Amino acid sequence: MPNSNKFSLTDAIALLTRTPVTLNALLRGLPDIWTHSDEGKDTWSAFDIVGHLNSAERHDWMPRVRRILESGGARPFDPFDRFAQKRESEGKTLEQLLDDFSRLRSESLAALQALNLKSADLARRGKHPALGAVTLSELLATWAVHDLTHLHQLSRVMAYQYREAVGPWSAYLGVLKCSGHSA
Amino acid sequence: MPNSNKFSLTDAIALLTRTPVTLNALLRGLPDIWTHSDEGKDTWSAFDIVGHLNSAERHDWMPRVRRILESGGARPFDPFDRFAQKRESEGKTLEQLLDDFSRLRSESLAALQALNLKSADLARRGKHPALGAVTLSELLATWAVHDLTHLHQLSRVMAYQYREAVGPWSAYLGVLKCSGHSA
Repeated sequence: MPNSNKFSLTDAIALLTRTPVTLNALLRGLPDIWTHSDEGKDTWSAFDIVGHLNSAERHDWMPRVRRILESGGARPFDPFDRFAQKRESEGKTLEQLLDDFSRLRSESLAALQALNLKSADLARRGKHPALGAVTLSELLATWAVHDLTHLHQLSRVMAYQYREAVGPWSAYLGVLKCSGHSA
Repeated sequence: MPNSNKFSLTDAIALLTRTPVTLNALLRGLPDIWTHSDEGKDTWSAFDIVGHLNSAERHDWMPRVRRILESGGARPFDPFDRFAQKRESEGKTLEQLLDDFSRLRSESLAALQALNLKSADLARRGKHPALGAVTLSELLATWAVHDLTHLHQLSRVMAYQYREAVGPWSAYLGVLKCSGHSA
């Protein structure tokens, strides 16, 4: 299915636009067992995942887009700080983090659309500090799939809270067999 | 974390209530690459997953609740028809399936709440045709986790469409490593 792997800015933006409203629909007002429980030591709850998405929105996606357009491969991206959200989420409620995510994502997408990127721009190259050469379209595709990998993680973290409550049905529920690759 | 595995009817209903609005937020109006692409032969697209949730809503969840309350273990559940949705989704749009799911889930939850279940009811036993003895609370917990297993699958199926578009970042995106346990 070669066509299914084609990147399209329109398709990516359509998905990126929906993530904040999806998380809001799923998580706002949900009991703490679903939003503040994790999978054990050094794992993330739904609250932590939303905090992480906010940090990525602040420090990674559009800053990396701009770095490619301004410096190409001459200046690598700043390294990703996976734990920035610990500081940035401190003292906030989940509802505040969801509001922050809606606002930050709207700002990001407005800035992205203002760039009015053309096909030739999408092929421009940047430098990832660990992965090496990457293109702008790969960065934008990764932004969309990063949303999905954390939706994948979120559904697993939530399901984990009922891993014993389902009794023998655990044999049929694939999410309970997920090995945590999306953490 | 023993407490995190405690079933609560309130918690389960809170989650079950949010699934239709979550899927609506994520999928309605999204380009076909996200909603009508699958992972290859004999796999499901987002469209198929919503159809499956509708079939489960029609044939499984509340019918099984009623079977436990009416017959206990004397009469096993009717087997689950995993492919009923092929017939029931035929000729419909994704938007129609999302509308159906909202309506069916609302009807299910209204019927569930009308039963006014007590703790003693949650311990009542039924008989699964393959798994054997199960309790009503296990059935209700499974209903919630079944939503999550298909949200898990959905995020994976969508991410799969950009598995090549992300380039070298595939190494960091856990959802692309998911082995399909939640199909």
